[in-house]
Parts: sequence; C-alpha cells; structure tokens
Amino acid sequence: MRVVALTGGVGGARLAFGLQAELGSDLTVVVNTADDLERHGLLVCPDLDTVMYTLAGLDDRRQGWGLAGDTFMVTQMLERYGEETWFRLGDRDLATHVVRTARLKAGRSLTDVTLELPRDLGVAATILPMTDDLVRTEVRTDGGWLEFQEYFVHRRQEPAVHEVRFGGVERAEATARVRGELGFAEAIVIGPSNPFVSVGPILALRGMPELLAAARRGGTPVVAVTPIVGGKALKGPADRMLASLGHESSALGVARIYAGLATGFVLDALDSGLAPAIEELGLRALVTDTIMTDDVARIRLARDVLAFAREQR
Amino acid sequence: MRVVALTGGVGGARLAFGLQAELGSDLTVVVNTADDLERHGLLVCPDLDTVMYTLAGLDDRRQGWGLAGDTFMVTQMLERYGEETWFRLGDRDLATHVVRTARLKAGRSLTDVTLELPRDLGVAATILPMTDDLVRTEVRTDGGWLEFQEYFVHRRQEPAVHEVRFGGVERAEATARVRGELGFAEAIVIGPSNPFVSVGPILALRGMPELLAAARRGGTPVVAVTPIVGGKALKGPADRMLASLGHESSALGVARIYAGLATGFVLDALDSGLAPAIEELGLRALVTDTIMTDDVARIRLARDVLAFAREQR
Repeated sequence: MRVVALTGGVGGARLAFGLQAELGSDLTVVVNTADDLERHGLLVCPDLDTVMYTLAGLDDRRQGWGLAGDTFMVTQMLERYGEETWFRLGDRDLATHVVRTARLKAGRSLTDVTLELPRDLGVAATILPMTDDLVRTEVRTDGGWLEFQEYFVHRRQEPAVHEVRFGGVERAEATARVRGELGFAEAIVIGPSNPFVSVGPILALRGMPELLAAARRGGTPVVAVTPIVGGKALKGPADRMLASLGHESSALGVARIYAGLATGFVLDALDSGLAPAIEELGLRALVTDTIMTDDVARIRLARDVLAFAREQR
Repeated sequence: MRVVALTGGVGGARLAFGLQAELGSDLTVVVNTADDLERHGLLVCPDLDTVMYTLAGLDDRRQGWGLAGDTFMVTQMLERYGEETWFRLGDRDLATHVVRTARLKAGRSLTDVTLELPRDLGVAATILPMTDDLVRTEVRTDGGWLEFQEYFVHRRQEPAVHEVRFGGVERAEATARVRGELGFAEAIVIGPSNPFVSVGPILALRGMPELLAAARRGGTPVVAVTPIVGGKALKGPADRMLASLGHESSALGVARIYAGLATGFVLDALDSGLAPAIEELGLRALVTDTIMTDDVARIRLARDVLAFAREQR
C-alpha cells in the first residue's frame, strides 16, 4: 500500500518510523517547512531533520531533537565568537545544515536536497518538503508577533498564542512531487503533530485542500492520529495552543479541526469516551494505544493505523 | 615601534607570534588571501586563520594547520553525505568559517570580520586581509592550471609548478586600512613565507609596490626573513617552486626576489656563507638562527628582526 504521511517533527516522525518499518519505500513523508529558520547563515529545517534522523534510527530519543550522541564543539566556538546559540546545533547535525545550504546555493531545490541526504543515511522512505517556496510561521502573543522558533525554542513556548499566520503561504505551492505522491496514494495519514503549526502550514498551501478533497472523493482514506492524549500534548504546546486559540484541548478538539478533511480519526485508549462524539463528526474512530514509548510501540501504532486505513478503502 | 608584517601561513604566523610578544597591539599583520577557497559553501581563509590561531596560542603545532585538539565530527558527517573532504576542517575551525561566511553574507567586509574574530580569541595584534577583493592563486603544472589548494592540499604539492598567476589581482586593491597601516609603519617585515604564493599576491596588489617604495624612501626599513634554510623550505614547496620557476633554491635566490624592495635580509646561520652575495644585492644582511622550534625561538628571532630593523632607521 502506497502511503503518504503529512507531519511535523517528533510525534509525526515517530509514527513515520513505524510506518517505514511496515511499508519501506512505499512510504512518503511530506514534512512541514514553515518552522525552518536561518542560523549562522545556514538553513535549518527542524522538522525535515527530525524526520530524517528518526527514519535513519539516529535520533536522540532522550532530548527529542538532534542526533544521538552528538557533540557541540562548533557551538562552543560560535559562542566564543559572540554568536547567539539558543538554537542548539550539534556538530553532526550542523553538517546537515552546511550541506543543505551549500547545495541550495549551488542551485538545487530543497526537494532535491531532501531526496539526497536521507539516502546517504540509509532511509528507505521518501522524505519531501511540503514546498520549495518560503513559508514562515509566526505566532501572535501578548508581546506581539514572534517568529516561530523565537517562540518555540528561545521563549520555551511560554507566551500564550492568540493567532497563527504563515508568512508567504499565499504564494506557496505544494511541489509537483508532493502533488504526484498524493495523487497516487492509497492512504493518507495525518501524523500526531500539532494541528496548527505542524500540519496547519501543509494544509494551507495553495491547492492542498482541493488535492485532499479529490483524494477523498476518489476513495482514498485520510486517517488523522491524535497528538492529544488525556487532554495533554505528549510533546510541545499543542494542548495550550488548542485552548488559547479557542478549541477544546482534547482529541475531540483536534478531530473537529480535521472533520471536513479526514475520513478516520485515531484516538488513545485513555480517551475512548470521546469516540462517539468523534463519530458524530462524520469520522470513523479507532481507539488504540497511541503513545510511542519505544520501537515496538511505534510499529504497533503504525500497523493499527494501516489496518484502519485499509478498512476504509 | 609600529610594525607591519606581510605574511602567508605557518612560517609567517610563527614569526608574527614572536613579534606580538614584543610589540602587542603595535603589530599589524597583513595576510595573503589569494589561497582562500570555498568548501561546502563556506569561505575558508587558510592563511588568515593560521595567523589568528597562532597569535591566539591555539594553533596545532604538530600538524601545522588548524586548532590544537580539534575534533572532526562535522567532517565525518559531511563524508556520509558524500562531500569531498580532502580539505580537512576541524569542528572548532569550521565555526570560524561559518561565522565569517554568515557575516560576509550579512554585508560586512572581510576586513571587518577579520578585525572581530581575533579579538574574541584574545589576540592583541591587528590582523588584516591584504584586500577585500577576490584574488585567487593558480599554478600551472604539467597537467595545466590548478586552483592553489587543489595543488597544495589535494595533490600534496607534488606537481612541478611552471608558472603562478593571481586571478583577479589586476582589479584588486590593498584596503584603505592596509594602506594606512603601511603609511604609519616604523618598520615593515616580510615574513618567512613562500615568496611566490604567500608574499607574491600581497606585492601584486594594485599600488602595493608604490606604497612599499614610498615607505622605503621615507626611511622605513623593510626587512625580509628567509623561508629557505640550507636550500630547503622548512614547510611547504617554496624550495621546489624556486627551482621550477627558474630561481636558485637558496636564501640568496629569495634575497634576489626581494632585492629592489627590501632594505635588509635575515638569513640562517647555516647559510652564513651567502651573506656577502646578499649584501652585494644592496641589502643589509643579518645572520641568525631562523628556525622557530618553540615559543622561545619565535620570540628570539622576532627580537633579532626588530633590532635589525631599528639599526636601519
């Protein structure tokens, strides 16, 4: 089964790891690039890199970002030169940003580079940036608009978010490659990622709602996996953003956001009581264990999601 | 005494270390940039960095390039991505190239950045690139023209050099800062660097011969220190280049190159027999120990050079 997963960083990457174990090269992961940023003149793509490192089995599972066992010699020296290093870059991680930036400067597209790098790390799945155009997420807080990583990393997601916008999105398109993969997909999976700032930018690309609607009309199941369990995000500020943006901070709140778009919704066993309300939204509901504590759990959830998608074909 | 030293990499940097110990911030080092290169999209300035690391006391004395105790994590990962890594970049060294490239991209000049970085490493002397314009050395070998680092590092200086040219030099000028420092100098020292590819590009800049002639006419001593001892270069291919470019591979051969330009020439005790021939060229000759095996030897040679310059004022 050819599957396209739409994801942001950590949660989506972990599910993608499970999906890759089941599907190998039949998996394509379309990744948010709206929280990319430039540091020290280098283009850093946190979600693309988290997906790549996770699918390569190189991710740092303890801290949830970067490469396991990475060192910080470059950063130490950057600090000596007075550079701001609140966005921590490990040495091997930095090589990714150096190579990507150099190849883009030489005229390659972000899609090209994103096809090359994971291959060198032994990744079987195809990883694609959602777009080759520049989209940048900003969040409105009490202190005004902040660039996404300024909010997310530098201010540790502390300010309440009242509004989200994607700079440049009105001119940004899903790439031809992404459109093609979605056209051929036998199932589409929306990962357990933040619906506003991880999945949101992908869905906001020009033509993307129409593409997903067409796939759905053609009988392709679209399965969303909850990033919220027991009212809490497992990682990141999704729960607080749901609340501050006027939604219910629960799997049901997320299901409402995807109601017109998805055909099925996967929620955690802890939230089984929400299944009837989710089904009332016109979504099929699957209740299962969604917490991916280890490889076995990642693969088990992936299998459940794929079986659930197959049922809907 | 305000002293300006014109140098390339290792040998010149070692003498500059000794000069800095004597002169502190009264020393300005004007450094060759014609063997700079771009690696992985980053501007690498080998001579500027060797001078900076040496003056900061951070140079790797064993291998003669880079930072002592540097690690190679980034390079390891660059290799995984299929990048050519024959030009070895340590992790902390790479931070220098990252910061420099980012600041140039942000619109600063190479001179600005070269004033900033050494300050952060505690360097007392002023380090200046010879120019903010692009000059690139190429050497003609039996196999045709090669970029300098392709010859120097990748091919380990093995091909014989039949000709040297400095791409872009006809449009390149010494910076206003370099011209100013030369105007105020009470002595000018030409370091024990390769006369063709290290000192050569500095002397080939537009207006530079006139500037040095004016300083000389104004009574400023110009002292050159031999890079050749007993017919051999202590480091690098200067001896072989002297021969293949039609010169005598000796301190006398070097003295002949600087004859119209310098007022004094420092040669090694091993070559004392060449002193009369050097004096016949119209140069004053100083015979001393020029081999800088340790800090003490660097400082002793610097003292000898400064005393020799003072005598000539």
